[in-house]
Amino acid sequence: MHSDKFREECGIVGVWDHPEASNLAYLGLYALQHRGQEGAGVVSLADDLEASSDGQPSYHVHKGLGLVADIFKSFDFAKNLPGRCAIGHVRYSTTGENRIANVQPMYAEVAGGRLAIAHNGNLVNASPLRRKLIKSGAIFSSTSDTEVIVHLVAKAGKSTPAVENLISALKQVRGAYSLVAMYRNSLYAVRDPNGFRPLCMGRMPGGAVVFASETCAFDLLGAQFERELDPGELVEVSASNNVQSFFPFGRSTPTPCIFEYVYFARPDSTVFGRNVYAVRKEMGAELARECKVKADVVVPVPDSGVTAAIGYAQETGLPLEMGLIRNHYVGRTFIEPQQSIRDFGVKIKLNANPHALQGKVVVAIDDSIVRGTTSRKLVKMLRGAGAKEVHFRVSAPPTTGPCYYGIDTPEKHQLIAAKMSVDEIREFLAADSLQYLSIEGLYRAVDSKRGSFCDACFSGKYPLGTAKNGEAPEPQLKLV
Amino acid sequence: MHSDKFREECGIVGVWDHPEASNLAYLGLYALQHRGQEGAGVVSLADDLEASSDGQPSYHVHKGLGLVADIFKSFDFAKNLPGRCAIGHVRYSTTGENRIANVQPMYAEVAGGRLAIAHNGNLVNASPLRRKLIKSGAIFSSTSDTEVIVHLVAKAGKSTPAVENLISALKQVRGAYSLVAMYRNSLYAVRDPNGFRPLCMGRMPGGAVVFASETCAFDLLGAQFERELDPGELVEVSASNNVQSFFPFGRSTPTPCIFEYVYFARPDSTVFGRNVYAVRKEMGAELARECKVKADVVVPVPDSGVTAAIGYAQETGLPLEMGLIRNHYVGRTFIEPQQSIRDFGVKIKLNANPHALQGKVVVAIDDSIVRGTTSRKLVKMLRGAGAKEVHFRVSAPPTTGPCYYGIDTPEKHQLIAAKMSVDEIREFLAADSLQYLSIEGLYRAVDSKRGSFCDACFSGKYPLGTAKNGEAPEPQLKLV
Amino acid sequence: MHSDKFREECGIVGVWDHPEASNLAYLGLYALQHRGQEGAGVVSLADDLEASSDGQPSYHVHKGLGLVADIFKSFDFAKNLPGRCAIGHVRYSTTGENRIANVQPMYAEVAGGRLAIAHNGNLVNASPLRRKLIKSGAIFSSTSDTEVIVHLVAKAGKSTPAVENLISALKQVRGAYSLVAMYRNSLYAVRDPNGFRPLCMGRMPGGAVVFASETCAFDLLGAQFERELDPGELVEVSASNNVQSFFPFGRSTPTPCIFEYVYFARPDSTVFGRNVYAVRKEMGAELARECKVKADVVVPVPDSGVTAAIGYAQETGLPLEMGLIRNHYVGRTFIEPQQSIRDFGVKIKLNANPHALQGKVVVAIDDSIVRGTTSRKLVKMLRGAGAKEVHFRVSAPPTTGPCYYGIDTPEKHQLIAAKMSVDEIREFLAADSLQYLSIEGLYRAVDSKRGSFCDACFSGKYPLGTAKNGEAPEPQLKLV
Amino acid sequence: MHSDKFREECGIVGVWDHPEASNLAYLGLYALQHRGQEGAGVVSLADDLEASSDGQPSYHVHKGLGLVADIFKSFDFAKNLPGRCAIGHVRYSTTGENRIANVQPMYAEVAGGRLAIAHNGNLVNASPLRRKLIKSGAIFSSTSDTEVIVHLVAKAGKSTPAVENLISALKQVRGAYSLVAMYRNSLYAVRDPNGFRPLCMGRMPGGAVVFASETCAFDLLGAQFERELDPGELVEVSASNNVQSFFPFGRSTPTPCIFEYVYFARPDSTVFGRNVYAVRKEMGAELARECKVKADVVVPVPDSGVTAAIGYAQETGLPLEMGLIRNHYVGRTFIEPQQSIRDFGVKIKLNANPHALQGKVVVAIDDSIVRGTTSRKLVKMLRGAGAKEVHFRVSAPPTTGPCYYGIDTPEKHQLIAAKMSVDEIREFLAADSLQYLSIEGLYRAVDSKRGSFCDACFSGKYPLGTAKNGEAPEPQLKLV
Repeated sequence: MHSDKFREECGIVGVWDHPEASNLAYLGLYALQHRGQEGAGVVSLADDLEASSDGQPSYHVHKGLGLVADIFKSFDFAKNLPGRCAIGHVRYSTTGENRIANVQPMYAEVAGGRLAIAHNGNLVNASPLRRKLIKSGAIFSSTSDTEVIVHLVAKAGKSTPAVENLISALKQVRGAYSLVAMYRNSLYAVRDPNGFRPLCMGRMPGGAVVFASETCAFDLLGAQFERELDPGELVEVSASNNVQSFFPFGRSTPTPCIFEYVYFARPDSTVFGRNVYAVRKEMGAELARECKVKADVVVPVPDSGVTAAIGYAQETGLPLEMGLIRNHYVGRTFIEPQQSIRDFGVKIKLNANPHALQGKVVVAIDDSIVRGTTSRKLVKMLRGAGAKEVHFRVSAPPTTGPCYYGIDTPEKHQLIAAKMSVDEIREFLAADSLQYLSIEGLYRAVDSKRGSFCDACFSGKYPLGTAKNGEAPEPQLKLV
Repeated sequence: MHSDKFREECGIVGVWDHPEASNLAYLGLYALQHRGQEGAGVVSLADDLEASSDGQPSYHVHKGLGLVADIFKSFDFAKNLPGRCAIGHVRYSTTGENRIANVQPMYAEVAGGRLAIAHNGNLVNASPLRRKLIKSGAIFSSTSDTEVIVHLVAKAGKSTPAVENLISALKQVRGAYSLVAMYRNSLYAVRDPNGFRPLCMGRMPGGAVVFASETCAFDLLGAQFERELDPGELVEVSASNNVQSFFPFGRSTPTPCIFEYVYFARPDSTVFGRNVYAVRKEMGAELARECKVKADVVVPVPDSGVTAAIGYAQETGLPLEMGLIRNHYVGRTFIEPQQSIRDFGVKIKLNANPHALQGKVVVAIDDSIVRGTTSRKLVKMLRGAGAKEVHFRVSAPPTTGPCYYGIDTPEKHQLIAAKMSVDEIREFLAADSLQYLSIEGLYRAVDSKRGSFCDACFSGKYPLGTAKNGEAPEPQLKLV
Repeated sequence: MHSDKFREECGIVGVWDHPEASNLAYLGLYALQHRGQEGAGVVSLADDLEASSDGQPSYHVHKGLGLVADIFKSFDFAKNLPGRCAIGHVRYSTTGENRIANVQPMYAEVAGGRLAIAHNGNLVNASPLRRKLIKSGAIFSSTSDTEVIVHLVAKAGKSTPAVENLISALKQVRGAYSLVAMYRNSLYAVRDPNGFRPLCMGRMPGGAVVFASETCAFDLLGAQFERELDPGELVEVSASNNVQSFFPFGRSTPTPCIFEYVYFARPDSTVFGRNVYAVRKEMGAELARECKVKADVVVPVPDSGVTAAIGYAQETGLPLEMGLIRNHYVGRTFIEPQQSIRDFGVKIKLNANPHALQGKVVVAIDDSIVRGTTSRKLVKMLRGAGAKEVHFRVSAPPTTGPCYYGIDTPEKHQLIAAKMSVDEIREFLAADSLQYLSIEGLYRAVDSKRGSFCDACFSGKYPLGTAKNGEAPEPQLKLV
Repeated sequence: MHSDKFREECGIVGVWDHPEASNLAYLGLYALQHRGQEGAGVVSLADDLEASSDGQPSYHVHKGLGLVADIFKSFDFAKNLPGRCAIGHVRYSTTGENRIANVQPMYAEVAGGRLAIAHNGNLVNASPLRRKLIKSGAIFSSTSDTEVIVHLVAKAGKSTPAVENLISALKQVRGAYSLVAMYRNSLYAVRDPNGFRPLCMGRMPGGAVVFASETCAFDLLGAQFERELDPGELVEVSASNNVQSFFPFGRSTPTPCIFEYVYFARPDSTVFGRNVYAVRKEMGAELARECKVKADVVVPVPDSGVTAAIGYAQETGLPLEMGLIRNHYVGRTFIEPQQSIRDFGVKIKLNANPHALQGKVVVAIDDSIVRGTTSRKLVKMLRGAGAKEVHFRVSAPPTTGPCYYGIDTPEKHQLIAAKMSVDEIREFLAADSLQYLSIEGLYRAVDSKRGSFCDACFSGKYPLGTAKNGEAPEPQLKLV
């Protein structure tokens, strides 16, 4: 359901007190695969206190690079990831090196017990914390923000109960984090006070508590959705699915990520209280209301533009046509001939369908334009297949700034909308017209008032401020 | 773009006199991947007459099981499949054993030179021919019909020119065959007199002749579509892209496979003179005209039902909604928990989207019902997500008979429509209503008069008759 | 135990009427891995006459490229190669392309039933037979001689009993063949009248008959060695391990391959009535008697020269020293630095051990010199490690001619001994002296009179004559 | 050259200031593969100070489970491990889980810069240090002792120069460590004051400094051996191959591991000032002098017993015979039939050669007996092949205690010599006689006086004492 315009972010899942915890965690990751395709892992907590030399539960880890299906091919969950509790993670690895060291969940033995964390989001003060921690003797073997949290828990000391260590650690970090963690004998789930990233709680038929980034994971597991965690909420699940809720960070204004609606979340998920499909359709409808154009057909850029295009078509009454067909068998790599085929890179994935386009005035709908190069080829492809006019419409405002809260956007200088006016972009695309949804329209689509979401990538207004005292808006650490 | 309801058939491609022939053949297969996902291969004909000990061109072969992208991962075409001519094949392997021996193209040294064949279709007299050939001393190392053709060419003897051997062989077979072959120093492309399977000819920018099952392959290659081969036509391409056409089999009434429109071909392809997307939409529209029902939304079963659903929605004016969401990251295998999740098999691929369904009267559109078990789960899933009523509509007539001409349908006793009335099926599905497109409607959608297509799977009327003198309608050989 | 100077030949195994036939065949191949490392396969014959549509036993095939251990990794023999009868084959693939099509056993459906053959050896009249068969309409999809035999069986017609077809086929071929075959409901084992290649018969504890190229396979299986097949003998094993022996080819003078003793066979095997280790040691001893030199130490080139060196050392009383150490973890490929290391190719496998060499007059023992380039590097390496003098000794006569009977020797122009005198070779090697075992000495070592073995690679005397009427000594077919 | 009786230890390599540093490190590991077959890795230090955001050199890491050849298959060193400095490690992973987290070199960002360590050996105070570190807030993500060292360097603080941090860390650990490390802009090589494990320094032709566990790595690289590091020596190599030597730990009595001679080191290596082959032969000779027996032949257990057997044979004048033949193609796994073959596990690797044994009084030579079960099967196998008497001789004293300094011996209760007298073992083996080399004999063989080596596994005298204050002799941590 996703193009790879944005190298996405992460998906997390947690399962407590279920005989097949690790297998369920894996299936949850399967459903969340759209949130990260570069690496995945599951950590389980085994019950064998006897077996472990130190009277602590033992942990089992399996991680790898690639898709969930491949990492756990012919995997024996009962044998290799035993236990009644497990957490899992899918990610787009942020480093060029794609290093296994960055694949989550992170596992470590720390003061107070064993700890595994799966984290979705980015911290804005990771760098100074990291520097401080290193200065104080900490070792970092990955470039992941999550390792900062692990260290902070480790440093938090011996306070009992364990949850205090976790709270103490999280009080020191700022930024975006939805996370699940197993620490000592409990499962934790947390959303940062801004609630940038989604996180939901559900129940398996037998009562086992489950967490997941999106509700679509619950649908696959047959779990009942219970509720989303509140921004700033920390949930502790311990023996017998005993659930306790904490709000240790004080209250602040939540600013969940509006881009989850625009692009990330699966349409069948409910996120931040709304069905993604419904919101995305409404973006298309708003777009239609805002940016009128006389046209014959509405053509989505599949797959990401389909839902908005349905909304657009319903609002305008124009026929929706699949004028661009996607080849779903395209692998990660293909061998291009030396005598390169024109626009090969786009054509291997998308093909224009002349029948739906011939002689037509086309409204092409996509959810975003990043560098502009692909969109330009699509316009050319649509014209080549006979479109008389191509009016490009984007179901979100221009993407002008990078995300510092967990989405791997290209750097600012690569974002076409950060460098060109809409009209210049239109010219670059060689489209007959180009219009974006306004920020106001976007908020109407999500039926909220401005400021109730983080819209920094569109507005440049970063909820956690801009770089002061070396703290905020640094792009995610690159390297090593 | 395809579910795997029908384990599909085959796709073929041929490239003549191009410096990167094998690389192009591979890309053609990439575009035709939807026609067969179990195995693929490319054979190239190298120019090095000097190098070969017998003054004949040498052939190079690379085949494998799996997807094209995996079989040719990091493949060096220039080194391992050299030459200016190549043919390729994707297939759904018909044997339980999935044996590499059945993967095409078939290559053999035979009287008159070297021969490679890639074949789409099934012969109805393969078994008696095979028995006869074996009796006369032939050896069969695969269970493929294609090997029969190879033997017949081999037996055809020394007649010059080479094309005569091929013609002589094909005159003996009856059934469905679109094929490309390299024999001695020429490339051949043939469609059987009934023209069951599609086959098109195109030209690369520099003039190189290319053949492919569907035009979508040409779009990827940047080739210009020239024309479809006529039923019963044999095209010979020799030195310098010299194209010659033969009609050696006499004329008969063409009966191309109407199921290519219903299910197989990619919507952006032109097949049998018509754009598949257009025809498929028209099927949806005809369905709407034939089977009226008061409803709130039209919900396609993705991906196969999408195009017909668009047609249905446009005809009725009902809103199209993606009420079922497909997980496109689903691999071939996944590890199911022991405590099996309810309807797991369907849910791993499709999830109902409550927002689009809640309280709605739903028209669900699919292109076919095979065993009925999946459709039943979908109806249940739609209801579970809040649909008030579920009216199941199929954009083709009931599938009542197996295909003997190249499609790997389940056996008759597994086809629900061969065993139950429409009303019984409706009851089995637990749908509020169930309607199929009529055969008449189907023909209206393809804008042709009855009899101009093979519709045996719907009508039971097999163009090449039913089993007489041990010849016709045998299902494809199940092997060793 | 083998270097890869000679890309070896083949090993075969057959198992009759044992509940774990295919698993035993696989283990036999494990023990015979030294006879071929490029590909392997096992074919089993299942008992399910009921299941097969034609009342014939069904066959199951598993083949692959690479080592036995890798081809059958995690393989489920009971499920994928069921039945109480199986044959297996390891090979060095003779084609540059390493094509799976050439991997044996060959399986085909032919007149009279189903047939699988595993063949060790080369036919000298394969080419004319192949040409004749192709002319008569046969198709060849591999370049293997074995396919010729398959065709001849197929052509032999309907004569009953089945064994007649096999006999008829083998009467037409000339050359080297030890083979095991399953045909209809029997297992066959054959040695050609010259008996070029070894083949032994044994019994499993429960009475199941087994065949293998070398007795070392029986040792692993726990089978009791019974006897070698006689040259020209055909053994048929049918229901209940009923063994029948035939001599259908008339008697001729056996000429088993003396090179099996020199290089191929595993030292713990008994071949042609003699223990290989004993013979090989005696070659070393003869060499010592023939080619006296004053020296300090005897240093084998591991692993192939070790046994002869032991014999040499025992005969001379000189100390045997491991002056060259082999790295047994060397894989097939290694990444050489750009700034190539001097003599890298040899050093990755062998390292000189200065302690055993410093200041010593060294007799270096190897079993053969092929191109001379490796031997030259070894001499240099020995000197570099301090050897005062290096006297190179070869425990066999100079290899002056290629083998046409089943050993993949380099072509004649690549054999240094075919182009240079012994003294010229010595100079090329930069050895202080060089001596080969004489042919007479070789025969003394095997305790036989001249002519009782094929020694063509040393003597140029090919038992089946040289090329007359287009028939004999052609090198194995290269290609395609 | 090794059996897998002892799951070995580790091998390390370092390369400084060479344009193909990582490729050389890899080749060094290739030569050291016998020291660890479960995992390997290389870390390189790239020169691109500009590229790195913090003005520190960037590090690149590639690790994996399995053999060196497989982990670096088709690896592009220049691209993926750039830079002029690299360290590498092969290991036998100590954890049952075989976790990638334990594969070395360890890499971390710590106070003072970036750090990579490859470590051979075991610390005796790893557990208390680990506990203390965890208590103070450190996180441990592996079970490796090396991570303790990484933490200690990290904690050592900001002292300049960097070498001080390393020294400060190593002053806190006790046990066995030979290590190479890259820290900031220098390469370090260290041997612990006892000098348990070997470590050598050499030079590439152009002057680049290289380190390796054994000299055989230098031979492959074409490096000149310069010298061994002294026990307690720390060597720092910085810009332009500037080499500085430190002895920061004070002087203590060196006790290098005598077992390196008995079993671990490759015979062509020079270790602790002596050629391993020479020492090992001398052990065989001493054994012959100590334990006289009338016999016909000397038969080594290959490959580990070969060198001692040569020494034994030379001393006694008895003929050396390869009465046990090893199958060098045996992979890690093989599929055993259900009806298990008698002594299958041994037979797949070794086969008795009757010719060399029939009617003979045999002296069988091995380098050690661990559990006794394999030796017992060998005795049986030798008798089964006709040996009249089997006198088992071990070229080292009885292994009575586990190693705490880097060798993965079985636990004490699994060592047969820790539980039985020599006579009881003889009875268990069913040998006619059994004798071990005495400790005195062992010292004569290494030409040293007692106490100059660690011989704890034979004598029970652990140079670093036995468990006091929770510090010493704990077996290596068994994982999470």
